[in-house]
Amino acid sequence: MEKQGNKYGIHRVIKPQGVLTQAAQKIDNDMTKLYTNEIICDVISLNIDSASFTQIKEACEKVPEKIEEMILGIVSERGKMQNPVTGSGGMFIGTVAYIGEDLKDRDIKVGDKIASLVSLSLTPLKIEKIKKIHMDIDKVDIEGKAVLFESAIYAKLPDDMSEALALAALDVAGAPAQTAKLVKPGDSVLILGAGGKSGILCGYEAVKRAGPTGNVIASVRRDTQGKELIELGACTDYIVADATKPVDLLEKAIEANGGREYDISVSCVNVEACEMAAILPVRDGGIVYFFSMATSFTRAALGAEGIGKDVTMLVGNGYTKDHAEITLWELRESEKIRDLFNTKYI
Amino acid sequence: MEKQGNKYGIHRVIKPQGVLTQAAQKIDNDMTKLYTNEIICDVISLNIDSASFTQIKEACEKVPEKIEEMILGIVSERGKMQNPVTGSGGMFIGTVAYIGEDLKDRDIKVGDKIASLVSLSLTPLKIEKIKKIHMDIDKVDIEGKAVLFESAIYAKLPDDMSEALALAALDVAGAPAQTAKLVKPGDSVLILGAGGKSGILCGYEAVKRAGPTGNVIASVRRDTQGKELIELGACTDYIVADATKPVDLLEKAIEANGGREYDISVSCVNVEACEMAAILPVRDGGIVYFFSMATSFTRAALGAEGIGKDVTMLVGNGYTKDHAEITLWELRESEKIRDLFNTKYI
Repeated sequence: MEKQGNKYGIHRVIKPQGVLTQAAQKIDNDMTKLYTNEIICDVISLNIDSASFTQIKEACEKVPEKIEEMILGIVSERGKMQNPVTGSGGMFIGTVAYIGEDLKDRDIKVGDKIASLVSLSLTPLKIEKIKKIHMDIDKVDIEGKAVLFESAIYAKLPDDMSEALALAALDVAGAPAQTAKLVKPGDSVLILGAGGKSGILCGYEAVKRAGPTGNVIASVRRDTQGKELIELGACTDYIVADATKPVDLLEKAIEANGGREYDISVSCVNVEACEMAAILPVRDGGIVYFFSMATSFTRAALGAEGIGKDVTMLVGNGYTKDHAEITLWELRESEKIRDLFNTKYI
Repeated sequence: MEKQGNKYGIHRVIKPQGVLTQAAQKIDNDMTKLYTNEIICDVISLNIDSASFTQIKEACEKVPEKIEEMILGIVSERGKMQNPVTGSGGMFIGTVAYIGEDLKDRDIKVGDKIASLVSLSLTPLKIEKIKKIHMDIDKVDIEGKAVLFESAIYAKLPDDMSEALALAALDVAGAPAQTAKLVKPGDSVLILGAGGKSGILCGYEAVKRAGPTGNVIASVRRDTQGKELIELGACTDYIVADATKPVDLLEKAIEANGGREYDISVSCVNVEACEMAAILPVRDGGIVYFFSMATSFTRAALGAEGIGKDVTMLVGNGYTKDHAEITLWELRESEKIRDLFNTKYI
């Protein structure tokens, strides 16, 4: 008899009670229990988080048998592949084996190949056998099963591009999809850290959404990067500036936008203390979208107050509806971006 | 001949060049230079930031003459009252002495008594004389002048309430004003940390804006707090929960909202690791507004992604248009809140 589980998987927490599965020490990985709002997958491979895999390799002196034993030990102990030292997980690739009754209207069917977009640190996992450890790419091929809760996010792996290419883009899928939803025709948009992986995808999306009457300015560190971005269609113009020097960046950014402040800035710059560079160039009533994980909440909040800027500041959520589809579409649409990703990011 | 200065006061930075006045070591406090977009005030008193004043008192062994010498030294050295150890400032109260040509349409006139709502750590200040040091309330009465830049925020001190009462509310003015702008009729709103100063003001504003068809639930730590908040009109109902235990809080919060997820949550809880408690109870497409300075950017961003929540997460900006007026109006409108503030916060 199938039961309905909790949307976030709380029903699978064994200890301690009262936390979500990520914070739990041990979760229930019994794959014979079927819930009406869970998906069970046959796992093909685990892409272990880089911090976690490095720690495991070091602890096991790179001996494959020891690594195998350690991974099996963690999963049997915790019910999930969460490194007890780093706390981190990774993601899995697998095929759909079971879809609970309540999730029948999802856009996947049994047999589809998917990538999980939630962390292994919160995902029930049972390993029958480790088949191969790919030492250099943090990947482990296994035979086993994993559970996706009702709230879990995943992406169907497309037939028309390589798995590696799709995963490279899905890794940062939140940012371009949020940009796509924010930018309106005619908007002026400033992209900080525009030359990186998420910056390129955000810029491309911003150019498309702002359209012919809009203006997308890329802030980069080198002139050659800016030229490449124009070539890629990931900006309409660029400035060469250092986002840790807000006054200089402000002056260049405003000049590049015809003397006007921006409607939206998007910060993809993975360096500390770049909050003011994202806030200063934006008009009152505009939007500052922080995607960079180097963002400090207090520096952003107090920084905007200090200069009396009435801007809406958004915490970049790694998820938004249809984020995988929006991002993969960029690779389909733009041969140039696809080529760049194939060359640089896989 | 008057000149126009930079909107953010960059024209007064002496060293190092390229930063804003807050990050500068020394700024120009020459009050004989008149700019068309500056306001100059005759300062009555400095409310020194608590961290700064504590450090100064300790360094000077609480000897008034030494404190006087130290404050005069800092201001003559830096051109602003920014404690070199703590980096913090405070705010000032004064009367308007000069309004530059470009700012003539502002809602203040020469002679008005105002409170600066930007930090002394970025405000040009010149002290002629220290008149009195109020050791226990971190306040220093002076004779001197201060500059407000075009971007600076300030509030005219009202005639109909005490200075202390107005300042106690203005201290957290960003939060209730943002709440007022976010909450729409019929919304369900969850306030975390609802029993504190900003929580009370946000709750009162939410009840008013959500109206008779809305629902404002306060999350508090003690039953008596909840009863007080209902009495104040700062919630429609309450739950007693610990925001560091998200699963328990989620269950109680959903039950209190008739089994439904919330449109908006507002986090005013000044404790670490309460991000999930603010994110979990909100519906997809809803808003999570973080006002607490204990918020971690990465915990919020990764937390929402981990549970696949498509929510808009906002960094609480300490400033929004008319924030002082919106907040002071609460004290005028509600005798109960005014009484509470007079008893508890001044």
